[in-house]
Amino acid sequence: MPKPNFDELDAIFKPRGVAVVGASNNSAKFGHIFLKGMIDAGFPNIYPIHHKEGEILGLKAFKSVKEIPDPVDYVVISIPAKDIPKVISDCGKKGVKAVNIFTAEYSESGTKEGIKREEELVKQARKAKVRIIGPNCMGIYNPSSKIAFFPGISKEKGTFGFISQSGGHAEEFAFKGPILGVKYSKIISFGNASDLDSTDFLEYLTYDDDTEVIALYIEGVKEGKRFFKALKEASEKKTVVVWKGGGTEGGSRACASHTGSLSGSNAIWRAALKQAGVISVKNAEEMGDTLKGIAMLRPPKGNRVAIVGAGGGASVAGTDDCERNGLIVPQFDKKTMQKLENIVPLLGTSVKNPVDVSYFLLSDFSIIKKCIEISAEDKNIDAIIAQIGFFGIIKTLSKGMSEEELDKKIIDILLDVKKINEEKFIEKPVVMVLQSPSDILDEIKAIKFRQTLTDSGICVYPSISRAAKVLSNLVGEEMS
Amino acid sequence: MPKPNFDELDAIFKPRGVAVVGASNNSAKFGHIFLKGMIDAGFPNIYPIHHKEGEILGLKAFKSVKEIPDPVDYVVISIPAKDIPKVISDCGKKGVKAVNIFTAEYSESGTKEGIKREEELVKQARKAKVRIIGPNCMGIYNPSSKIAFFPGISKEKGTFGFISQSGGHAEEFAFKGPILGVKYSKIISFGNASDLDSTDFLEYLTYDDDTEVIALYIEGVKEGKRFFKALKEASEKKTVVVWKGGGTEGGSRACASHTGSLSGSNAIWRAALKQAGVISVKNAEEMGDTLKGIAMLRPPKGNRVAIVGAGGGASVAGTDDCERNGLIVPQFDKKTMQKLENIVPLLGTSVKNPVDVSYFLLSDFSIIKKCIEISAEDKNIDAIIAQIGFFGIIKTLSKGMSEEELDKKIIDILLDVKKINEEKFIEKPVVMVLQSPSDILDEIKAIKFRQTLTDSGICVYPSISRAAKVLSNLVGEEMS
Repeated sequence: MPKPNFDELDAIFKPRGVAVVGASNNSAKFGHIFLKGMIDAGFPNIYPIHHKEGEILGLKAFKSVKEIPDPVDYVVISIPAKDIPKVISDCGKKGVKAVNIFTAEYSESGTKEGIKREEELVKQARKAKVRIIGPNCMGIYNPSSKIAFFPGISKEKGTFGFISQSGGHAEEFAFKGPILGVKYSKIISFGNASDLDSTDFLEYLTYDDDTEVIALYIEGVKEGKRFFKALKEASEKKTVVVWKGGGTEGGSRACASHTGSLSGSNAIWRAALKQAGVISVKNAEEMGDTLKGIAMLRPPKGNRVAIVGAGGGASVAGTDDCERNGLIVPQFDKKTMQKLENIVPLLGTSVKNPVDVSYFLLSDFSIIKKCIEISAEDKNIDAIIAQIGFFGIIKTLSKGMSEEELDKKIIDILLDVKKINEEKFIEKPVVMVLQSPSDILDEIKAIKFRQTLTDSGICVYPSISRAAKVLSNLVGEEMS
Repeated sequence: MPKPNFDELDAIFKPRGVAVVGASNNSAKFGHIFLKGMIDAGFPNIYPIHHKEGEILGLKAFKSVKEIPDPVDYVVISIPAKDIPKVISDCGKKGVKAVNIFTAEYSESGTKEGIKREEELVKQARKAKVRIIGPNCMGIYNPSSKIAFFPGISKEKGTFGFISQSGGHAEEFAFKGPILGVKYSKIISFGNASDLDSTDFLEYLTYDDDTEVIALYIEGVKEGKRFFKALKEASEKKTVVVWKGGGTEGGSRACASHTGSLSGSNAIWRAALKQAGVISVKNAEEMGDTLKGIAMLRPPKGNRVAIVGAGGGASVAGTDDCERNGLIVPQFDKKTMQKLENIVPLLGTSVKNPVDVSYFLLSDFSIIKKCIEISAEDKNIDAIIAQIGFFGIIKTLSKGMSEEELDKKIIDILLDVKKINEEKFIEKPVVMVLQSPSDILDEIKAIKFRQTLTDSGICVYPSISRAAKVLSNLVGEEMS
């Protein structure tokens, strides 16, 4: 199988030089932000373009792309649509490989003029041998070649590729990497897809050695057959997660206003995504949670889960949440229950699955470790969800310990769980759930604590429902 | 219609004296926590009971309930099950009206001994003319009579009654009041319901003048027909929200382990709840969100919603989330779109509904006010969801303003929206959505800011999906 477009796209993702047309010293202009993003990412050969400024953000500015003495492969454009044809023409003459057009007012406007403007843009660019990303998009983030579409995005390289028809979602996920424990190989926001489309980027990432997982946010595609062929091929090689925007009647209409996309029949999309063997998610939260799960968990072999943690009401709610999200919470084997009975005090508890250790978790948090280990030994269990409780109450009952001591104690026990998991039952993933407590100060502590756990390589979600959805999405997925 | 049980229960909720059996100076004991809760709530006549201590938490302790010289109507019991018959006998002699038994190891254990122990407990209590709340529960919180089951719960009186078969959920919601903007009239955790059952408390709150909204967490009921009759009557008088735990096969099994409840067929429950005309919710998050909505919003007349806010991708996602949660996002009237076009700059935006103001919201946040007002004038719209954006980006583009200035500016505009809403289109509720940003520090700021908004009487949720579910739940609900 050849690598369609691969070298052409690879040159765009690894440009020798980058120009920013519309670069400005005015910090409220997007041209300023794009330039700052490139500088911040550490790209060495950046050329601001401005019709009169001599220097922008400390860099020598040029009046036109043509004036730049060194090679330029990628040009970011953030100027009014009427001035863009001149830039495309200059780019053609300069031998620029691709432009990323941030400017809107093209087909997404739904106006005759906008649609025509986009058609002419494409025609002109084809003639000039310049590929277009966009218009109406953010372009490319590639930490390994030090380019970025926004200042402040992580400089760390990773293995997750994200292809997004929405600039907002691309931006959101770029910034959200550290919260999710996810590092990216590439992020692409491609907007109206007037020339380069999701399929091109999908094919590229399928053959990109830096990318192991591919996430897509799609509103519509132009060549459906080619797209689904590429999707199937991608999912044979890598883990692929697709969020199809416009999955409802109103949402489909909103897609047309956003990127001029015809989002297509939802029934057809559902069937095709299923056939392509990808993980299908319905919104940003589920996308983020699922990427976190892929980054941190080994996929379970089946959907039978043990719930371990505090509280009877929470056990009922957790079981409902699991089963509503495609998991099963089966009763344990008799042997497992017997072993648990030796660990869990009898009063107001349950060892049938869920393992409800009631308030005893609070006086001896290490119970959770033993309960997880015993549950994982049960042959009817494929994965474990451990509720590590509500912060406020843990705190109430942990007299005589400073907050730091308490945090450290909990983390040490959970790192121990992680170690046991890796050594003894690696095929059965363990997910932690730390719910949002009832008090605003404790909620803030819980958020920080979740981040500490994530940074320590412990996968944690704020609800059983979200943890369950992720496990359900990962069942049977092979890690690449 | 008579008020069944009303006076009997009212006397329990407004006790003349309260004793805590199992009270202890050991802060790790629940008897200590219950006593502390009562002291903290400000109840004047509290009597710790202990077989040898002379003073507990600064109060004179008694060896038995019988020894207390003053009247005692309510007794909290937290001692081993084997010692409880003696206490019940003493309570009978003393003329105590009800005991709240925290102790577990009764029918919820699923053992023959536990079931028998509970049967005998009830028999003995009936003979002694003492009513039982529980066993295996937290009992009563009633800020107007200054009793509480935990220290640290709000002392403010409100109009929300919460009846919970789970102690954990009762506790969670008690503490969560301020986050939700909800104040309670009464909260009752009744556990195994060996004597007083959900129906008794439901009938009581139906006729309780302090209670305007009734929330229930139920795992199972003993007299189904009587319960549903009471539920229907309650929902004719007040707004009623029901969370039925054990709505899945596994969840139903977990109910049996938790409170010994037979949770019953889910199809029958669904049909009966619908017929009773209550709002039915599926988990704690939806319960909390819905209570917040009832506390802060006027219910919409229909399910057609306008989405106003930033971002094209977010508009698509928001529309999908609304329509998946039972709302419709219709296209605006032509006149509305024309009016919006005068306000919203043309570039990369949309005025069809959702109103996508793209990045312009960031440079002029007050656009949102005008957009909401124009959207509300549209005859096809019943409610408005306003996305007030991601904090991190708002901050990036709000140069020259301190954080406090920015916060104040946003709040002032949103308070203005609230005023306009109340003056001009009060029948169309406006809900704010402040999403969780991509950065941990901004996420913490967002949480604090949501609380500031809630405290200012502005209803805000962290996602469109959650806001949509609440509006959908409230459609057609008449406020009591």
